Amino acid sequence: MSTTTPPAASTALSERFRSVRQRTLALCQSLTPEDMMVQSTAEASPAKWHLAHTSWFFESFVLREFQRGYKLFNPDFAWLFNSYYQTFASFPEKRLRSSFSRPGVEEVLRFRTHVDEAVEALLDGNPPAEALERIELGVNHEEQHQELILTDILSAFYVNPLRPVYRTEEAEPRVSKRDTEPSGPLRFLRFEGGMHEAGHAGDSFCFDNELPRHRVWLAPYALAERLVMEDGGYRRPDLWLSDGWNAVQDHGWSAPLYWSSESGEWSIFTLRGAQPLSRRKHAPVSHLSYYEADAYARWAGYRLPTELEWEAAAEGRLIAGNLLDSGRLMPVPASEMADIDAPGPSSGSSGERVALLPENPAGSFRHLWQLFGDCWQWTASAYLGYPGFRPLPGSLGEYNGKFMSGQMVLRGGSCITPRAHIRASYRNFFTPDTRWQFSGIRLASS
Amino acid sequence: MSTTTPPAASTALSERFRSVRQRTLALCQSLTPEDMMVQSTAEASPAKWHLAHTSWFFESFVLREFQRGYKLFNPDFAWLFNSYYQTFASFPEKRLRSSFSRPGVEEVLRFRTHVDEAVEALLDGNPPAEALERIELGVNHEEQHQELILTDILSAFYVNPLRPVYRTEEAEPRVSKRDTEPSGPLRFLRFEGGMHEAGHAGDSFCFDNELPRHRVWLAPYALAERLVMEDGGYRRPDLWLSDGWNAVQDHGWSAPLYWSSESGEWSIFTLRGAQPLSRRKHAPVSHLSYYEADAYARWAGYRLPTELEWEAAAEGRLIAGNLLDSGRLMPVPASEMADIDAPGPSSGSSGERVALLPENPAGSFRHLWQLFGDCWQWTASAYLGYPGFRPLPGSLGEYNGKFMSGQMVLRGGSCITPRAHIRASYRNFFTPDTRWQFSGIRLASS
Amino acid sequence: MSTTTPPAASTALSERFRSVRQRTLALCQSLTPEDMMVQSTAEASPAKWHLAHTSWFFESFVLREFQRGYKLFNPDFAWLFNSYYQTFASFPEKRLRSSFSRPGVEEVLRFRTHVDEAVEALLDGNPPAEALERIELGVNHEEQHQELILTDILSAFYVNPLRPVYRTEEAEPRVSKRDTEPSGPLRFLRFEGGMHEAGHAGDSFCFDNELPRHRVWLAPYALAERLVMEDGGYRRPDLWLSDGWNAVQDHGWSAPLYWSSESGEWSIFTLRGAQPLSRRKHAPVSHLSYYEADAYARWAGYRLPTELEWEAAAEGRLIAGNLLDSGRLMPVPASEMADIDAPGPSSGSSGERVALLPENPAGSFRHLWQLFGDCWQWTASAYLGYPGFRPLPGSLGEYNGKFMSGQMVLRGGSCITPRAHIRASYRNFFTPDTRWQFSGIRLASS
Amino acid sequence: MSTTTPPAASTALSERFRSVRQRTLALCQSLTPEDMMVQSTAEASPAKWHLAHTSWFFESFVLREFQRGYKLFNPDFAWLFNSYYQTFASFPEKRLRSSFSRPGVEEVLRFRTHVDEAVEALLDGNPPAEALERIELGVNHEEQHQELILTDILSAFYVNPLRPVYRTEEAEPRVSKRDTEPSGPLRFLRFEGGMHEAGHAGDSFCFDNELPRHRVWLAPYALAERLVMEDGGYRRPDLWLSDGWNAVQDHGWSAPLYWSSESGEWSIFTLRGAQPLSRRKHAPVSHLSYYEADAYARWAGYRLPTELEWEAAAEGRLIAGNLLDSGRLMPVPASEMADIDAPGPSSGSSGERVALLPENPAGSFRHLWQLFGDCWQWTASAYLGYPGFRPLPGSLGEYNGKFMSGQMVLRGGSCITPRAHIRASYRNFFTPDTRWQFSGIRLASS
Repeated sequence: MSTTTPPAASTALSERFRSVRQRTLALCQSLTPEDMMVQSTAEASPAKWHLAHTSWFFESFVLREFQRGYKLFNPDFAWLFNSYYQTFASFPEKRLRSSFSRPGVEEVLRFRTHVDEAVEALLDGNPPAEALERIELGVNHEEQHQELILTDILSAFYVNPLRPVYRTEEAEPRVSKRDTEPSGPLRFLRFEGGMHEAGHAGDSFCFDNELPRHRVWLAPYALAERLVMEDGGYRRPDLWLSDGWNAVQDHGWSAPLYWSSESGEWSIFTLRGAQPLSRRKHAPVSHLSYYEADAYARWAGYRLPTELEWEAAAEGRLIAGNLLDSGRLMPVPASEMADIDAPGPSSGSSGERVALLPENPAGSFRHLWQLFGDCWQWTASAYLGYPGFRPLPGSLGEYNGKFMSGQMVLRGGSCITPRAHIRASYRNFFTPDTRWQFSGIRLASS
Repeated sequence: MSTTTPPAASTALSERFRSVRQRTLALCQSLTPEDMMVQSTAEASPAKWHLAHTSWFFESFVLREFQRGYKLFNPDFAWLFNSYYQTFASFPEKRLRSSFSRPGVEEVLRFRTHVDEAVEALLDGNPPAEALERIELGVNHEEQHQELILTDILSAFYVNPLRPVYRTEEAEPRVSKRDTEPSGPLRFLRFEGGMHEAGHAGDSFCFDNELPRHRVWLAPYALAERLVMEDGGYRRPDLWLSDGWNAVQDHGWSAPLYWSSESGEWSIFTLRGAQPLSRRKHAPVSHLSYYEADAYARWAGYRLPTELEWEAAAEGRLIAGNLLDSGRLMPVPASEMADIDAPGPSSGSSGERVALLPENPAGSFRHLWQLFGDCWQWTASAYLGYPGFRPLPGSLGEYNGKFMSGQMVLRGGSCITPRAHIRASYRNFFTPDTRWQFSGIRLASS
Repeated sequence: MSTTTPPAASTALSERFRSVRQRTLALCQSLTPEDMMVQSTAEASPAKWHLAHTSWFFESFVLREFQRGYKLFNPDFAWLFNSYYQTFASFPEKRLRSSFSRPGVEEVLRFRTHVDEAVEALLDGNPPAEALERIELGVNHEEQHQELILTDILSAFYVNPLRPVYRTEEAEPRVSKRDTEPSGPLRFLRFEGGMHEAGHAGDSFCFDNELPRHRVWLAPYALAERLVMEDGGYRRPDLWLSDGWNAVQDHGWSAPLYWSSESGEWSIFTLRGAQPLSRRKHAPVSHLSYYEADAYARWAGYRLPTELEWEAAAEGRLIAGNLLDSGRLMPVPASEMADIDAPGPSSGSSGERVALLPENPAGSFRHLWQLFGDCWQWTASAYLGYPGFRPLPGSLGEYNGKFMSGQMVLRGGSCITPRAHIRASYRNFFTPDTRWQFSGIRLASS
Repeated sequence: MSTTTPPAASTALSERFRSVRQRTLALCQSLTPEDMMVQSTAEASPAKWHLAHTSWFFESFVLREFQRGYKLFNPDFAWLFNSYYQTFASFPEKRLRSSFSRPGVEEVLRFRTHVDEAVEALLDGNPPAEALERIELGVNHEEQHQELILTDILSAFYVNPLRPVYRTEEAEPRVSKRDTEPSGPLRFLRFEGGMHEAGHAGDSFCFDNELPRHRVWLAPYALAERLVMEDGGYRRPDLWLSDGWNAVQDHGWSAPLYWSSESGEWSIFTLRGAQPLSRRKHAPVSHLSYYEADAYARWAGYRLPTELEWEAAAEGRLIAGNLLDSGRLMPVPASEMADIDAPGPSSGSSGERVALLPENPAGSFRHLWQLFGDCWQWTASAYLGYPGFRPLPGSLGEYNGKFMSGQMVLRGGSCITPRAHIRASYRNFFTPDTRWQFSGIRLASS
């Protein structure tokens, strides 16, 4: 992190802190105490645990160090809600989180209030720059858990044989289609490559794994203008990575996660309940593993982009799309979000607004649809440190660095990623068999 | 089941139905909605599931068949809360029960009320004998789940790193010790053996696996007057069954379940929280597997009794001891329950009160302490059908019969078994590696 | 063991020792050094290991103790070829036996010769009765491993994708059919039950688990005149024990082990290669687990016999049938072995020849076909110690006793059991999911 | 592959074919038929399988397509000895290879002769360039299996509790030490980085995964002059990748593979038997996983090099060092091989001899010791396709490409890699938990 602290930063951060903390609660509003106990799969955690852990983060890395005289809400929480920071404290095995019936939701909410008040007091008291940096890190950390709360609830409600529905209200009204709607054959946008700088630039917030900014040479490449809407090829071993084919066999995969078929009718389970596949066919395919994404690309005669090809194409573009703020909570056709591409925060590291750049001034298309939002886009890049990578000092060095093996990078955010959270240099990462996230495919070619 | 229906039976059953249903709720009174979601181990179920499943049993096997015009509370519950009756309906995998956040506790309680009212209406309406038999079966079924609720909550609270306490109020006052207190060296009571009849007799309720009554020849044997209070021998492979030694190695067993040691001080986790071992040393050892019970017996130079040796010794004796009704909720020293051996329901199948029989009129002791209650007693008998065994007809035939492989019989009930539920012919059964029950040791010799 | 040592015993034992040791080698004659390395499944061991381990048994329990000045062939073999005797020496994990490429076959054969010479010298030198008892135990132990060599080679050759054939020569000529051939509907032989004595009697050899002789009360019962020839019922969960149905699902069982189907034609893999099922349909079904045997019995409306019902029916009968000595090496129809029921060793414990007893002097059948040989017969009895059971003293106490949990008893021997090895009181035992043995079904009813 | 076929190529290839095929046999000369059956771990295959599979490769990809009228040695071998080419034929599960007792060694050797004669006949007959390319691929494939034969025999002999010795003769004489011996503190050689070309260049043989040659930008970096000789840091979770720490816990790693300690004395098991650690302390540490290599580097304050940093440093250097041709069969101290750095094939892609380049003309050291040989060097690079990577067409496309997930790249060859096989652009790859290979550590820094 390389945050400087201009005079007004504290106030802005205070506002951001409050709104992020509030949104976490809002996301849990329709959940019962029992819903918040479910841990449906090894990747997931109970919602109540997310509520507690995000507060633990502020208590452990901000208040303990920077708030004079801060009194721990409950000393046991220091290890109970530690996720994986070995150098900070012991922690329970992840699978035990579903046994934390005590503390109950009410006590966890009191914990949140206790922490909120202390952080706000700290912010009011002209804290040192490092404290502000930590709070900013905590806010970003909490946004990651907002996404996880929704990911995990979708899984929890899918595992429940009654398949409850998380959100019953109408989504925002469908916008009218633009005439530039990306239909017909998939078109590709070409990029010239050459020497690029990759990684976060500027002094706004980023995670340690987005640094250092470094030079990279890219050969010419092309990216598909939108995400992949179909799926297929589950029966041909020659398309698959060896580990991927083993996964297909072991798990019996024949469709993306959350697809099910009853008497020949396919449906997709979403945060708005089961949706007939027939009505979702222009929406991007989601909940795919890297293995499926890679095999699909091969089947289609293409490949996945590298993370730095993606980043070079995304840098400087407006951050817009079907993100959490759209309220849709599921991937939608590219056309539906056309008008949402209104001005907003830009993805550039420079901090200034950058207009949409026509890559091909003479051409019939000039747009990368669904660059942000809808589905995280699997890349062909393993999650490793950039040249010269240095983790944060102390326990926070365990945040990202220790996961740099066996995982692939995803880019772009999804329909449940907060818009303020995502950017062009943002690196998400999962093991190649992970399907419980909103993860999809953008094709590339050389 | 061989229940006849004398005129007043319906009223008595009605009363029993109401009190058993009420006790189930009482046992859950101190649990939060979150507590009722925890499924801490493969053997266990969430308390909320127990609340629903016991109602499901009445709905499925009583109301559907005998209550004219009965309307299912929720058709999905027919399969959702089915435990394992393959011929009745499909059922979810057991491990998924912790995902049933919906229906919530309140809806489950409404389900209970709906079922209660219908059963009571049925009982008021002069139902056929078979309906009464089914209700009686359901009542006994519910008592089994009362025991499971407590067993599972103990496990759930043990797995929770905070180790919450289920019952904080004082237990009933300790009674004064009798002068016949069983202290000093363990004494044995001898039995002559010979031809016995085993299995349930008479027309009171029993499970199908307690029948038919049949003749068995017993060689002379002796039983220890009380349960075993110590433990040991975990380091000597020669004492163990081969599978048992493998279990010791695989699980790293070096003490009974729920024992833990901190800085050299051992404690036992109970429904009343952690208790120092030093204060529990005269209480029977509990939460042992069959493997441990068998190895202990060999170490001590004895053996475990067969189930029919135990039954021959127990038949006709008063049912008294540290059962659920004592409110202690944990095993206690034999002396503590001495005066509790007051008249109560007898264990005989004849139904009449039988006085305590002095086995040895001249001797200094004549009593089998802890015959009922404290801990289920592992026997040396595999759980198999008696000669001529026939399961109940229909789906209820799956109640007991299909588990007749790989399990060992336990006898006598425990500190969380309802007194009205246990009897001399009662057969409990678990796989030999099971430790999550209140299971202990009575020694025998030939 | 309760062997006395009459004067001529040593000579007879010497002869028996020589012939048993020789047969073991004969069974391996057609195996290559590579064949003798294969360990195809967790139950199996390589043939070379069997060759070494049976010699280890004589060295460890006879020569070490009774042969003055005996020099170990190789001190490392003392632990290398120990199977499971914890109190004797350490031993390698069973699964490692396929890594014992050294010592090679030739060295193992030298080990055998070394041991043979020493045992024969001991026998020539008027050894104490206890030494003779141990040698007799070793001979019986080796006969068990002869059966295992064939069982394991069948499995090894089945796992080899090329499916090699163990025995290519013709079997002995088919005998002509007797007019009493058991065809048509399956008939049952009734037994009156009553008080019986069970377990080995007399002073001939038996294993510790066949003792003590004890009284048992049997209700009247009936046994099928022959073994079951068909199979079925794999699709109905209501027929199965709960653990059995889980095994069916987990392993995808839909036919006995070694059955396979190619383009609709079923065949059975045997020690004589694949045999079309169409030519085997009157032979008993083999290679079934207890779960399958139990489910089949239920499907057919019968049950499995208890081990003591079987023994009461078998005691005193001639030991005859399709045993290893017939050379067939696979189960055959009952009619084919009719004339083989010639005089031979009897099954009685008394040692005298006992004529075939007509159970029903007036009836049209009086014979229990396939009582010995063809397939081990699963019984409804768990493998437990008889009342008053005491294992052999010392390390040999680990021979049988420590396996008394989780296993079911089988009786009668199979087509690969040496005739001299089997008797009415003989108890074999396997876990209920075991299919790799020649194990089949005799039905019973009450 | 991009091999052209100059006139004399066929003769040279013929000679290379013969010598490589011969060396494979020579490596197996001291193995018994039983040794060649052992499959000690999931990564390993029996030596006999390697003998057969390498012949299968020539039969399947050369003779079938290019040798007119070629008759398969045995049609079953086409699938029996297929390793993993899904599009070529079915294949048995890898773990079954230890069941292939038939065909025996002699038949496999006849298979080899059959194939050898046919390939040589083909080579004599002026074959098309593509056939020559395939033969060259087959020769390189066989060299990989030569390395695997030794790797797997080391594992097989380690698992055998008797720990047999593969090579008992003396190694080649120790050379005298040069005065430039790399002792004392570890020194680093600096590289300037900049724009490099990576991947194979020229028209000599390479695997598909070494192509295409492409540009890469490297920041300045430094490499340690020799491999790491010590080990440590197994107790500190903060040093480890998260998956690595889990592996340490799961497997109980506290030392490299093949290290064992008896009464405080450590020894290392090698192809020449157990060697006291005290005599090996200047030899590079071997048989480490990537997790251990990565954690060690962190502990030492350094990092692992990327594969392209390594390649940029290695390109153009002489291929010399402790490779299979040295006959040592185990890693040795850097000083011991000093004089072996005599002229030999160079590592460059250009094919011409390249003199050792002084990186630092003024400096006190100018040499990268152990660049080739001793141990494969784990790099910080995930095994992925180079930009524009295209697998070979047809089934051979499964050779390398389908393993591009979850693996890390290793560079440089080891003490059992044929000298003719290795080069600067050569990419080996294993999952990060692999320890059964000769794999070690070269440190790097930025």
